[in-house]
Amino acid sequence: MKRIILFSSDLDDPAAWGEAVAARRPDLAMVDWRAIEDPEAVEFALMWKPPPGGLSAYRNLKGIQSLGAGVNQLDLTALPPGVPLARLVDASLTDTMVDYALAATLRHFRGFDRFERQTRARLWDYAPAPAKADFPVGVMGIGVLGGAVAAALRDLGFPVLGWSRTARAIEGVQCFAGTGELPDFLARCRLVINVLALTPETAGILNAGTFALMQKGSFVVNIGRGAHLVEADLIAAIEAGQIAGATLDVFSEEPLPADHPIYGRPEILVTPHVAGSIAPSSAAATVIENFERAVRGETMLNAVDLARGY
Amino acid sequence: MKRIILFSSDLDDPAAWGEAVAARRPDLAMVDWRAIEDPEAVEFALMWKPPPGGLSAYRNLKGIQSLGAGVNQLDLTALPPGVPLARLVDASLTDTMVDYALAATLRHFRGFDRFERQTRARLWDYAPAPAKADFPVGVMGIGVLGGAVAAALRDLGFPVLGWSRTARAIEGVQCFAGTGELPDFLARCRLVINVLALTPETAGILNAGTFALMQKGSFVVNIGRGAHLVEADLIAAIEAGQIAGATLDVFSEEPLPADHPIYGRPEILVTPHVAGSIAPSSAAATVIENFERAVRGETMLNAVDLARGY
Repeated sequence: MKRIILFSSDLDDPAAWGEAVAARRPDLAMVDWRAIEDPEAVEFALMWKPPPGGLSAYRNLKGIQSLGAGVNQLDLTALPPGVPLARLVDASLTDTMVDYALAATLRHFRGFDRFERQTRARLWDYAPAPAKADFPVGVMGIGVLGGAVAAALRDLGFPVLGWSRTARAIEGVQCFAGTGELPDFLARCRLVINVLALTPETAGILNAGTFALMQKGSFVVNIGRGAHLVEADLIAAIEAGQIAGATLDVFSEEPLPADHPIYGRPEILVTPHVAGSIAPSSAAATVIENFERAVRGETMLNAVDLARGY
Repeated sequence: MKRIILFSSDLDDPAAWGEAVAARRPDLAMVDWRAIEDPEAVEFALMWKPPPGGLSAYRNLKGIQSLGAGVNQLDLTALPPGVPLARLVDASLTDTMVDYALAATLRHFRGFDRFERQTRARLWDYAPAPAKADFPVGVMGIGVLGGAVAAALRDLGFPVLGWSRTARAIEGVQCFAGTGELPDFLARCRLVINVLALTPETAGILNAGTFALMQKGSFVVNIGRGAHLVEADLIAAIEAGQIAGATLDVFSEEPLPADHPIYGRPEILVTPHVAGSIAPSSAAATVIENFERAVRGETMLNAVDLARGY
């Protein structure tokens, strides 16, 4: 008789996850919530969002593994009290986020955003790239994901600055911390990538005030969460020429509605929440480890502190 | 009395080159061809193209330094006989070419080309990136420039294949050589970057036959020369769905005329010959070294073999 892990996500493939887990642990069955026969047999859950009916029927649930690096897609107050929750941080997620950050940074650095508009206008306007030394890149949020982004940009030769709420150090990256040092950080960046976790303190952190502190003609990349960015402020900053362009992967509403004003700004590239993706074959080991820890009552890897919210 | 280097280019800044050379060798004066008073005082020339009147008046010219990594912008038959010619290969050129190749590869790999079109159509269509293992990148031309491109892509984790006319080896890159191995090389690539030198043998090498040998839905990046690509064949291959997109920096005619059919294909990004740029501060040392070699009658760095054409 197999032990049951409940699966709940409309964005991920239950079969791929089931196979990846079973390949390592044949005694574990990943079962889509629609196919659960006995809710009380469920010991653990892997989910992007809970099933529509909530989780109260799964009375023996020992732990919840988010299918994302964050948990703010979940309504934390609606989760069963006392059941621990973990974020999913995996090398495949970090790798894909790093590649996206490099792609977006090189896109703006090499003027591909501008050349896309020129191409559509049948316009040839020679504009060589600046020197890398004149294109410092700032990374907001330098934990596991942001730290990897900062290191990869540093390795490509960009001057890299990092900002976090609490002080951190990364070799070859000029690190700033706390709200007091945020203006100094922003003033030095030609491009800012947001990789912060979403908390009450960081919600709306990319706003008119932030943009005003950046150098005129700077760029914004958001691979954190949609709620980090005040979208109307970005549009206004672009219209004013303060921000030259943006590459955005996350939005206040997803899918971004077709009538959203972001689509009206040709300086913005919209990508449909694809920056980070978790490969089941890579992350199954982490899910199994957290299953084991949860059923033994131990702290899971990347356990969420519900007071901090991440 | 300073020694005179003639400067001739409409695309480069004579003052920046003059300062960079004078900073190292105050006895050398870089003089724009329009300001040369005594043609017989000219010992050396740094040029993209010759002055409109040609070079026959500069009877004491000992060597010509191209302002590009190639020399095919020059009509070799119109140069003074017996005056040696050198290509300009500099770290700044290699670095900028590598960055462009990474930017273009990541653009297609992460679907930014497709998302640009979706953004303009106000369309949200979730399409995660393939695994890198499923996105082998082929580099055509693996000399100094192409070898650096191949190594950088390898270091980012892409499977990399290289093709050259004569056999070469690069660690971690699967190398193919000669026309006999070209089909096998092409069949394995999801994206091909052309960095070849332009010669009679390589002109038109990106054509309907080449595209047919690539996997359906592959991508093409051209940072070699415009004459490597049969532009009408690329447009037809895109219309047929054989090629999914292209990033092109060089064209049969530059500036690309506004009525050119390339602009009619939204799958093509046109960049205005910006892939490689040479920083005077970096390359001045090479120019000075070749000046010294030329006046002493020695072989210049990256001397052109006029029989091979590069």
